[in-house]
Amino acid sequence: MAASSLDVVGIGNAIVDVIAQADDAFLARQGLVKGSMQLIDAARAEALYAEMGAALEMSGGSAGNTLAGVASLGGAGAYIGKVREDELGHVFAHDMRAVGVRFDTPPLASGPPTARSLILVTPDAQRTMNTFLGACVELGPEDIAPALIASAQVTYLEGYLFDPPRAKEAFRKAAELAHAASRKVSLTLSDAFCVERYRAEFLALIEGHVDILFANEAEITALYRTASFDAALAAVRGHCEVAALTRSAKGSVLVSRGATESVPPVRVDRVVDTTGAGDLYASGVLYGLTHGFDLAAAGRLGSLAAAEVIGHYGARPETSLKALAQKAGLL
Amino acid sequence: MAASSLDVVGIGNAIVDVIAQADDAFLARQGLVKGSMQLIDAARAEALYAEMGAALEMSGGSAGNTLAGVASLGGAGAYIGKVREDELGHVFAHDMRAVGVRFDTPPLASGPPTARSLILVTPDAQRTMNTFLGACVELGPEDIAPALIASAQVTYLEGYLFDPPRAKEAFRKAAELAHAASRKVSLTLSDAFCVERYRAEFLALIEGHVDILFANEAEITALYRTASFDAALAAVRGHCEVAALTRSAKGSVLVSRGATESVPPVRVDRVVDTTGAGDLYASGVLYGLTHGFDLAAAGRLGSLAAAEVIGHYGARPETSLKALAQKAGLL
Repeated sequence: MAASSLDVVGIGNAIVDVIAQADDAFLARQGLVKGSMQLIDAARAEALYAEMGAALEMSGGSAGNTLAGVASLGGAGAYIGKVREDELGHVFAHDMRAVGVRFDTPPLASGPPTARSLILVTPDAQRTMNTFLGACVELGPEDIAPALIASAQVTYLEGYLFDPPRAKEAFRKAAELAHAASRKVSLTLSDAFCVERYRAEFLALIEGHVDILFANEAEITALYRTASFDAALAAVRGHCEVAALTRSAKGSVLVSRGATESVPPVRVDRVVDTTGAGDLYASGVLYGLTHGFDLAAAGRLGSLAAAEVIGHYGARPETSLKALAQKAGLL
Repeated sequence: MAASSLDVVGIGNAIVDVIAQADDAFLARQGLVKGSMQLIDAARAEALYAEMGAALEMSGGSAGNTLAGVASLGGAGAYIGKVREDELGHVFAHDMRAVGVRFDTPPLASGPPTARSLILVTPDAQRTMNTFLGACVELGPEDIAPALIASAQVTYLEGYLFDPPRAKEAFRKAAELAHAASRKVSLTLSDAFCVERYRAEFLALIEGHVDILFANEAEITALYRTASFDAALAAVRGHCEVAALTRSAKGSVLVSRGATESVPPVRVDRVVDTTGAGDLYASGVLYGLTHGFDLAAAGRLGSLAAAEVIGHYGARPETSLKALAQKAGLL
């Protein structure tokens, strides 16, 4: 195994978030399930956008957010995802590179536009996501550069990648390349509905192919079809090296074969928008695990990063996580 | 004079803001003058964007921001400005309409893209703007709909409109139409450098063509070439019906022929980004003056609107100004 030049390479749906405030009545009128991610087509995206309030646009995408967080903590990262050569694709690539994340995936010259997620944030700070995958449907195994995967300590994959048709192949290729280079593979389950869509495949992947698993309470209980978080926790133990399970305001639990660490959340004065909370938690944990931190310390970095991002609109840090972590004595 | 169906119609450069944090060293390296707006061409926009940090995109444009604020206070407004049929043009139009501002200016089908302003926000919350005018250079008198102008109590014009070549004609046409319909004409001087560029024209316009003038301290002293704010205030009195002069943390002074009202600023817990402060001050004053408020009460609405927008990134309100003003007992 050669020395790794990168901490984490993330593979995901490259998405620009379009974030607007909405009330519960709006979600009800539009038939939206609060807190979930649903896929929409171009026509529905157009129609929903027309009904939405004034928005702000920010680069997003689950793994993209996680890599931005890794970079903000001072880690070395790369990202693989598909945009088109259009204004939003330009924005996505700029924002990735501007935070120091390597991003070389060739953009589509034609075809569907860069993906966008219409995100409605309700007064309770919950986010409801409506994603038009656009150019993401063209991500395929040809976009997985073997040398890049081999150069990273961890290859991080988002469960959402099972939605576009060819990304699944890219996903499997990346996991195989990572293990062939004696690297770790990490997966986030992404969303409870996503787990329902791909439950059998996710279970098979976790068995033997995933070293570091991320899930929130809804996702892990959906995966194991358990009635309680504790039962799900017992079910996952031993099926991967580390499972990092988040529980919103209850903090998180990190589980390895022999250890269980409960990590409290970092308190936030005012929770504005929970978009990206899970993604940034993963940033902290991945940074920690790739820098020799123990489970509890990695979890605390995760809590810190998640706390930063829920204090403002948008799913990427507004301030240096490294400076925040140093101030908190975590780095 | 027919009953007016609109409170304010605003005419301006239709711009999407691209907002990133930067430090003073970055401004120095790029040769930028903090707090100012400078015009840049497409190549410079590309080069500066490549050097900037991760950004968020939000609809902006001075008069666009003001109209969004008028709508947020519950006023009826329309906007005239030129975008292209592209993704950012779509964003701009959506955001205008989503807040209830009428926006019917036909977009360009080809030619330069929708304008963007690369805005660097320093830790002191000051903003430095670098504007690529793009499609705005095509705004012309043919875009000024006489019936729309005649239907609004106030036609509001931004000084920045003197930069693109044909907008000046649109500006003059709108002012003439407004006065022909016995409506008021309002102008903001926009920026001290803008005043330097068009000083003689602005002075001539104010004499007899502008009823309600907005300026900050730097702009009004640049206009009258006075050493002090008080001297500038004495110079402007009587040259227009109302001059509303802002002084950042010192609040504002509203001057009519016979009265002078000093209005304190509304305190803000943490000033994050001053982009839009002047634009939103104008929203409050214009709302007040078109709803029968006296000078002092109109000024207080201006202070309240400005305070909301400087507490977060972006130049448009994140929350209902009407609700804020009601809570503060101003509406």
